[in-house]
Amino acid sequence: MRDISIHQLTHADFAPFGDIITLKGTPDKLINQDLCGRHHDLANMYFGPNGKAGISLFDAEPRSLPYVLELMERHPEGSQAFLPMTQNPFLVIVAPDNDGVPGKPLAFRTAPGQGINFYCNIWHGVLTPLFAPGLFAVVDRIGTSTNLEEYWFEKPFTVSGDLK
Amino acid sequence: MRDISIHQLTHADFAPFGDIITLKGTPDKLINQDLCGRHHDLANMYFGPNGKAGISLFDAEPRSLPYVLELMERHPEGSQAFLPMTQNPFLVIVAPDNDGVPGKPLAFRTAPGQGINFYCNIWHGVLTPLFAPGLFAVVDRIGTSTNLEEYWFEKPFTVSGDLK
Repeated sequence: MRDISIHQLTHADFAPFGDIITLKGTPDKLINQDLCGRHHDLANMYFGPNGKAGISLFDAEPRSLPYVLELMERHPEGSQAFLPMTQNPFLVIVAPDNDGVPGKPLAFRTAPGQGINFYCNIWHGVLTPLFAPGLFAVVDRIGTSTNLEEYWFEKPFTVSGDLK
Repeated sequence: MRDISIHQLTHADFAPFGDIITLKGTPDKLINQDLCGRHHDLANMYFGPNGKAGISLFDAEPRSLPYVLELMERHPEGSQAFLPMTQNPFLVIVAPDNDGVPGKPLAFRTAPGQGINFYCNIWHGVLTPLFAPGLFAVVDRIGTSTNLEEYWFEKPFTVSGDLK
């Protein structure tokens, strides 16, 4: 009941929670004398009533599996995109909302070269790289109002699966 | 006269042209039970009078040195941030404006884990990774109006230097 298996990230499974930021089969446009493919506008972002878009860097400790999931969080005033600055997969955990608290979580493993964007107010786990360096560019709301809600599970979940 | 040497990217040299998106000495905030450092709001972005922020992926062919610089470009309606999705350095070329055309270009090599943000209307070279995969997340203006000005040099420049 408290065990969660990691699945490969797919657009179908992730669609209710956010965007997968990944190369399309073919680029929208070839630029720079056809030496660069532009895969255009891959994230539905929101920065709240009084916020603006910002780029920050998150430098996180790599985690190991099985991962004990005690905490989820959500951001009521903006989306949050995570762009790995490595080619390593990372662990993405989300949950449907269940009357203001997270329902049963889902766990996904990204493919190398994929980022993700959590929609505003989607319950998600904290950033969980699986390899060093755990360096990510984050595009999210910059603002002064409170933009964090946390939920601690009474009993933690255990997340396990293959890394590749 | 037409030879340009590559220098290591520094905040002092790059300040007139844009931001270096890089870890600070210490993070602005420790989050996620102190397992993640947030290095906050590192880019001064602009998305034009009718644009919005977007995330795209650029998939570019790696270039080799010496690099022949024939073309520069600028974007009158927005800034443009390049975030490498690898730990490889890349080549960054900018130029001051000289009555509407690029002056003598400057060439920089990033450190691993660094991104950059070109300010609006700054002359810059096209994306020039030096290693495969040449995969970058790009945060720039999404919009329908023209946002590209190109300049072809009558005689190209030759950019050379060490990769590391």
